[in-house]
Amino acid sequence: MPAQSEVIAALDALWPPGRAEQWDAVGTVCGDPDAEVRRVLFAVDPVREVVDEAVELGADLLVTHHPLYLRGTTTVAASTFKGRVVHTLIKHDIGLHVAHTNADRADPGVSDALAGALDLRVTGPLVPDPDDPAGRRGLGRICELDEPETLAGFTARAAAALPATAQGIRVAGDPGRTVRTVAVCGGSGDSLFDDVRRAGVDVYLTADLRHHPASEAREQARARAAGADAAVPALVDAAHWATEWPWTEQAAAQLDEISDRHGWNLRTHVSRAVTDPWTAHAASDTRPADAPPTPITDIPGAPN
Amino acid sequence: MPAQSEVIAALDALWPPGRAEQWDAVGTVCGDPDAEVRRVLFAVDPVREVVDEAVELGADLLVTHHPLYLRGTTTVAASTFKGRVVHTLIKHDIGLHVAHTNADRADPGVSDALAGALDLRVTGPLVPDPDDPAGRRGLGRICELDEPETLAGFTARAAAALPATAQGIRVAGDPGRTVRTVAVCGGSGDSLFDDVRRAGVDVYLTADLRHHPASEAREQARARAAGADAAVPALVDAAHWATEWPWTEQAAAQLDEISDRHGWNLRTHVSRAVTDPWTAHAASDTRPADAPPTPITDIPGAPN
Amino acid sequence: MPAQSEVIAALDALWPPGRAEQWDAVGTVCGDPDAEVRRVLFAVDPVREVVDEAVELGADLLVTHHPLYLRGTTTVAASTFKGRVVHTLIKHDIGLHVAHTNADRADPGVSDALAGALDLRVTGPLVPDPDDPAGRRGLGRICELDEPETLAGFTARAAAALPATAQGIRVAGDPGRTVRTVAVCGGSGDSLFDDVRRAGVDVYLTADLRHHPASEAREQARARAAGADAAVPALVDAAHWATEWPWTEQAAAQLDEISDRHGWNLRTHVSRAVTDPWTAHAASDTRPADAPPTPITDIPGAPN
Amino acid sequence: MPAQSEVIAALDALWPPGRAEQWDAVGTVCGDPDAEVRRVLFAVDPVREVVDEAVELGADLLVTHHPLYLRGTTTVAASTFKGRVVHTLIKHDIGLHVAHTNADRADPGVSDALAGALDLRVTGPLVPDPDDPAGRRGLGRICELDEPETLAGFTARAAAALPATAQGIRVAGDPGRTVRTVAVCGGSGDSLFDDVRRAGVDVYLTADLRHHPASEAREQARARAAGADAAVPALVDAAHWATEWPWTEQAAAQLDEISDRHGWNLRTHVSRAVTDPWTAHAASDTRPADAPPTPITDIPGAPN
Amino acid sequence: MPAQSEVIAALDALWPPGRAEQWDAVGTVCGDPDAEVRRVLFAVDPVREVVDEAVELGADLLVTHHPLYLRGTTTVAASTFKGRVVHTLIKHDIGLHVAHTNADRADPGVSDALAGALDLRVTGPLVPDPDDPAGRRGLGRICELDEPETLAGFTARAAAALPATAQGIRVAGDPGRTVRTVAVCGGSGDSLFDDVRRAGVDVYLTADLRHHPASEAREQARARAAGADAAVPALVDAAHWATEWPWTEQAAAQLDEISDRHGWNLRTHVSRAVTDPWTAHAASDTRPADAPPTPITDIPGAPN
Amino acid sequence: MPAQSEVIAALDALWPPGRAEQWDAVGTVCGDPDAEVRRVLFAVDPVREVVDEAVELGADLLVTHHPLYLRGTTTVAASTFKGRVVHTLIKHDIGLHVAHTNADRADPGVSDALAGALDLRVTGPLVPDPDDPAGRRGLGRICELDEPETLAGFTARAAAALPATAQGIRVAGDPGRTVRTVAVCGGSGDSLFDDVRRAGVDVYLTADLRHHPASEAREQARARAAGADAAVPALVDAAHWATEWPWTEQAAAQLDEISDRHGWNLRTHVSRAVTDPWTAHAASDTRPADAPPTPITDIPGAPN
Repeated sequence: MPAQSEVIAALDALWPPGRAEQWDAVGTVCGDPDAEVRRVLFAVDPVREVVDEAVELGADLLVTHHPLYLRGTTTVAASTFKGRVVHTLIKHDIGLHVAHTNADRADPGVSDALAGALDLRVTGPLVPDPDDPAGRRGLGRICELDEPETLAGFTARAAAALPATAQGIRVAGDPGRTVRTVAVCGGSGDSLFDDVRRAGVDVYLTADLRHHPASEAREQARARAAGADAAVPALVDAAHWATEWPWTEQAAAQLDEISDRHGWNLRTHVSRAVTDPWTAHAASDTRPADAPPTPITDIPGAPN
Repeated sequence: MPAQSEVIAALDALWPPGRAEQWDAVGTVCGDPDAEVRRVLFAVDPVREVVDEAVELGADLLVTHHPLYLRGTTTVAASTFKGRVVHTLIKHDIGLHVAHTNADRADPGVSDALAGALDLRVTGPLVPDPDDPAGRRGLGRICELDEPETLAGFTARAAAALPATAQGIRVAGDPGRTVRTVAVCGGSGDSLFDDVRRAGVDVYLTADLRHHPASEAREQARARAAGADAAVPALVDAAHWATEWPWTEQAAAQLDEISDRHGWNLRTHVSRAVTDPWTAHAASDTRPADAPPTPITDIPGAPN
Repeated sequence: MPAQSEVIAALDALWPPGRAEQWDAVGTVCGDPDAEVRRVLFAVDPVREVVDEAVELGADLLVTHHPLYLRGTTTVAASTFKGRVVHTLIKHDIGLHVAHTNADRADPGVSDALAGALDLRVTGPLVPDPDDPAGRRGLGRICELDEPETLAGFTARAAAALPATAQGIRVAGDPGRTVRTVAVCGGSGDSLFDDVRRAGVDVYLTADLRHHPASEAREQARARAAGADAAVPALVDAAHWATEWPWTEQAAAQLDEISDRHGWNLRTHVSRAVTDPWTAHAASDTRPADAPPTPITDIPGAPN
Repeated sequence: MPAQSEVIAALDALWPPGRAEQWDAVGTVCGDPDAEVRRVLFAVDPVREVVDEAVELGADLLVTHHPLYLRGTTTVAASTFKGRVVHTLIKHDIGLHVAHTNADRADPGVSDALAGALDLRVTGPLVPDPDDPAGRRGLGRICELDEPETLAGFTARAAAALPATAQGIRVAGDPGRTVRTVAVCGGSGDSLFDDVRRAGVDVYLTADLRHHPASEAREQARARAAGADAAVPALVDAAHWATEWPWTEQAAAQLDEISDRHGWNLRTHVSRAVTDPWTAHAASDTRPADAPPTPITDIPGAPN
Repeated sequence: MPAQSEVIAALDALWPPGRAEQWDAVGTVCGDPDAEVRRVLFAVDPVREVVDEAVELGADLLVTHHPLYLRGTTTVAASTFKGRVVHTLIKHDIGLHVAHTNADRADPGVSDALAGALDLRVTGPLVPDPDDPAGRRGLGRICELDEPETLAGFTARAAAALPATAQGIRVAGDPGRTVRTVAVCGGSGDSLFDDVRRAGVDVYLTADLRHHPASEAREQARARAAGADAAVPALVDAAHWATEWPWTEQAAAQLDEISDRHGWNLRTHVSRAVTDPWTAHAASDTRPADAPPTPITDIPGAPN
Repeated sequence: MPAQSEVIAALDALWPPGRAEQWDAVGTVCGDPDAEVRRVLFAVDPVREVVDEAVELGADLLVTHHPLYLRGTTTVAASTFKGRVVHTLIKHDIGLHVAHTNADRADPGVSDALAGALDLRVTGPLVPDPDDPAGRRGLGRICELDEPETLAGFTARAAAALPATAQGIRVAGDPGRTVRTVAVCGGSGDSLFDDVRRAGVDVYLTADLRHHPASEAREQARARAAGADAAVPALVDAAHWATEWPWTEQAAAQLDEISDRHGWNLRTHVSRAVTDPWTAHAASDTRPADAPPTPITDIPGAPN
């Protein structure tokens, strides 16, 4: 069985830490490099529910997309939820390793997995990495549909393909407009609106869009389009977690392949815990809305 | 009829510009101080649809909550949507005046209007203004319900009371938990989580919450509560626009009262344009979700 | 007739905005890209007097050297003089376009026009642009005189050649020293003293020199020269406006040539308004100076 | 005879160093605190000509208004003019002491001396020092004329009263307007335009005004005055050195008084060297201006 | 038995975290607030040797003076020595709590313990805390000797009283000078030279003095003293660890007293591990120095 | 005889100022470039004792390794020790020139002289200068011993070879471990621990190591070595002055060679003043340490 340091070296080859953003904090958060690794759990968020799953599973290593500590800490005392995570992991000999923006920019990366889940054909990165002569690495992906469909159809496809969440999917745009090209960006994508505009796509699918960036992007696109509504990209906003979850399956498969190659005999798992914080959604499209929201704490269609 | 400068002096008395945040940009964006004012339109966002409404209405002054330029610009060329807004307003002799964080902190302020729309009894500000000896000004409001109700019930009330939007309302928490106290904050409220925790309320209703702040607030509250779920405040997240729209009605009423007092004979109007950027929502709670999203470009229950 | 956007594209080709200094604010300040352009007025300063001239002239576009807003603004309210400028321009459908440090560094640029007005032969830039393989672009110009003359003679030439201003010209140096080479820099030139020293010229002609930079440059040059006064460059300081005005004629001629080439049939004009703020000068060379200063509000020799 | 340290203690009592601006560099630049002081020379600028005068005079202490080093240096090598000043002073046992913005803000200060030279009656500071309960200290001074006069008359008075310089005096304003109140500020005064506006004076007399601040102040005042030209303050701009020279006489008199009180028997001197860098001025009010500029290297009316 | 949170509350009352320097990182580094505490170990440095001692001792809490993480970290992976410390502590259920500059400033504080070890009479803090009306808290301490002695005698006293270290003690000053007053500062004291000078003491005893601060302090004091050598404070520099170790005994005694008061029945221990990094010293006072340095890995007189 | 400027040009060729660190302040501090130079004194520190030696010697130029002013000053008043140094030097026509980090990085540089004094064979720089294709310039040096010896033996060699100081030498490491390779860095070397680790040497000899860097470097190396103590580099810490003094002899020899080449007939001298601030050392290895420290103000073995 491989040592933790060997497994991590393999993960770092997939997602080189040096390709993360300057402000990011990727790499190993806790764990002993000499410990043996048999079971690895992949998840989006290093939160208590996921850590408890790792403990129950008997995992030796937890690999998450989101950092536990994005900014430096001087304490891991168990009085904070993050310190409690550290205590639980160390007490149970579980390492924690993070691949965040280095996984976003990788080939394949987070947005490739997202495009794959949506059955889109990737034609290249949305923001190409200048250091990649092959032109495949970078943030986001530009994709094509095999057959054009309406925005309503594309939204239905996304709702069906992404793991279920209580918050669902928000859409901005004419439901009848034709969609041929899509830019996708797993996670918060509001910093890439300029790149989306330059890409000239029909739809931008991402997460966590707030009022002001979304409103300004729409208004600016309308001003440029000067009446040609087809030139204004529609927006599709899904749960942050849901847009990144497909990467955990992709990453697990990548490690499986490495394990086979080295004869490591690793057992890899993908967490199905829905760590999107929202647990219910209520429509607000008529004034007298007496029906209570549908609680969705146990989502049947969550990633299986 | 009053000059624009007289009307603005009255608005500045309601929402003194000096009480805005340092980073904010409030006050008059365009217009001639000597122009006469007969009609005033109130709205949340200074976007094209609202400006067109002002033109059709023959308004002389448009008062919005959101700044047109939050950061300084060196151009108002009509090639940008904001420059087009300036051109249209100046060509039609319409002034634009902004009351943003100065209206948030006022008494009554944006969150008072929000609490009023929800039929909540305000007991004080969430973040009191240290310069207000009366203890009424500040960001957000802490409220009490006349009768306790479940989180499901409270959510239904919010969905019914707030102006309709396509995106609806997101909820995090046990639908059956009892709600007695609520913190509300119109607009983006993710910077006030520490204050919410200190206030010890049952629910926090605000807008534009993103994955990381919402997730961390929930996890941290759970770590502190140590199993006592009732001590973890639920989150209710509505459309940014919908949480601030009630203020436009409140503000128009305040100016009506001033107009009567001075004999100005002003005509005030409240824009009913839904400037939330999202136009449809799709549930994503089962994997095979074939139904297309419901387009909601024309919302019957929008603010009347 | 061309659209504003076509004319501006032609101007941007002459003075590419990307070559302006980082801190500068060049480009279109107001106006509609789709408006037709028949008349263009060139001037140094976008001040009220110039704007009124544009209105009277029926101009569609005003091109100035100085930005209206060098730092960003969040308001163009007509209560400020700059906001009033914006209102007047938009109400009269006049665009405003600025070419500032991009025009300074161009070939030909502001200092070429200045050298031309003084009948000097340009040998190259004072601060060459490292990106110009031809070695012609950059700040300031180094020039040669066809025939050596005294500093007194050179000053007289400058006084005669530059457009008349009330403030006149200040000189530092021995009036009898010989002048063979001159560095010129239109506008405020006190940041280029090190370059002037390296150039080894006899005279530096620029504008807006203040006590400390001028005094330190003179003292430092004297310390280096160690008695060889000829090695200390003389200074000639003219009105800021006067050193930049020749560029407006040069720029108008450049646009005329473009207009002819495209068959645009543009009418170009050069403003003769003296926007130097000083309107009179009083000698102060004897204690009892009873004569009042000569008011020069109407200068006969102003640029025709 | 007093030690240098005793004389400097007396000067520091007149102009406490702690009242200088944060960015300023006042106090003793070189000299031995234990050296005896017999002769003290006062001047505006610590330049070579003044230092040579101190050497010839046999001075033990030179007191200047301008710092030798405003920003810190790591070298006083004699290859720079400032290092040469240090070498000359130390070789001749002459101390150098600077009173800059602490003298500006003092009571009496630099602008009191300027007002006195102009025979104006000071009514208070232009920017009062908040720490002075008497309301007399601060930057600039607001003054009244005993009898109203025209701007032309006031300019003639300034030209006659200030020490002669080649550059003379620049004026912006209607020569016939009436002058009753004047703000004065010795040295560069372009940062005080807002205070001048608030003071509502008829004229602002200062030095070193550049094109942009002067132009903007004039334009802004005109926009506010809305046609009432009398409400636009005129500007009078003299040589920087000339506006500060009167302070050297005032300061010498202050030290004389102290010397008498202590029986120190000091000899105080005031430098008459004209350290304004400009040595000639040429009018530029007609195009054909053949006359050479008048060299003014030896100015008969220089401070006697 | 008390919970860790109760013991820490008691320690925080002794050394309130809010009194630490802004840049410091004090408080609990790891551990579970609900764990029971029976044994507490006090030490200067949270290094491996000390952590191993805590494990062998069966301690539940380790209290150190130095922070484990002074700057924030995003990883506690066991591949670093600090991460290994965290892993070992958490695996053995040992909490780590730090009292650093809050202990320095306390009453009694680190320098009180140092003065006590040296048998000096404290008269007050070297840098008084402005928020302490009693004038007892602050950095460093000013002390008096009961009987004057020579610097040589004082040095011998320090060498005998402080815990033994291989590096010994460095002295700067005349061995025969009389010592009546002493400033002491446990740990690195080179930022307090100005305060030492103002205190006018005969000796400054601290640690970790480097060449430049020590040299400059000596030179500056000599320049001020002008030959009066008695006015130049001598310097005594001991091992950083040795100057802070006395605090661990003092702190343990304080916790014992609290334990007795609450009936907690705690067992407190003081680490005797010499964590000064230096293990040998070689004299260098003659050129031919053939004798090898004396290894002092096992120091007989180390704190017992 | 050469002018100061000629001698300095030669020194600048040895140690180009452009190769100093950004934060450093090298070059000429005072002196007249035209003065003739006959005698040059080399020393480590520009302190009073050294300056007095230069005066007594009749030196025309003092060359030191340490800057007088590392940060900029606005005063050289003789009330400070540094200002007194400037006054003394200028009064006696002695120039001061500094070669600091430019001498550190040179070939040969400060650490070459240190290695030479220790009879070590240099194999290359510890931190190579990326701009030196020959790979010889840079900070520190990596060295080999001709014959392996124990750490105790190496320490004895260092104690014998370096100029004598009262503080002696501190050692961290097993005295019996074998030493084959050594990294040396004259002056404070605590910023180079990472480079030392990468170099994999047996010993790091430098100066001015403080508790925290030394302790962390040792702990981190132990954590990496995982029991293999031979992989943990030992530390040898000598007096800052002693590690840099050998450079003064090397530099004087370099200038002698240049003087011979040019026929300048310079007399060069090396200061033997021990400017290490420490004058005595007391062992602290047993509790009852009654013997007074040995005063070493006159060190027989000081550099002769």
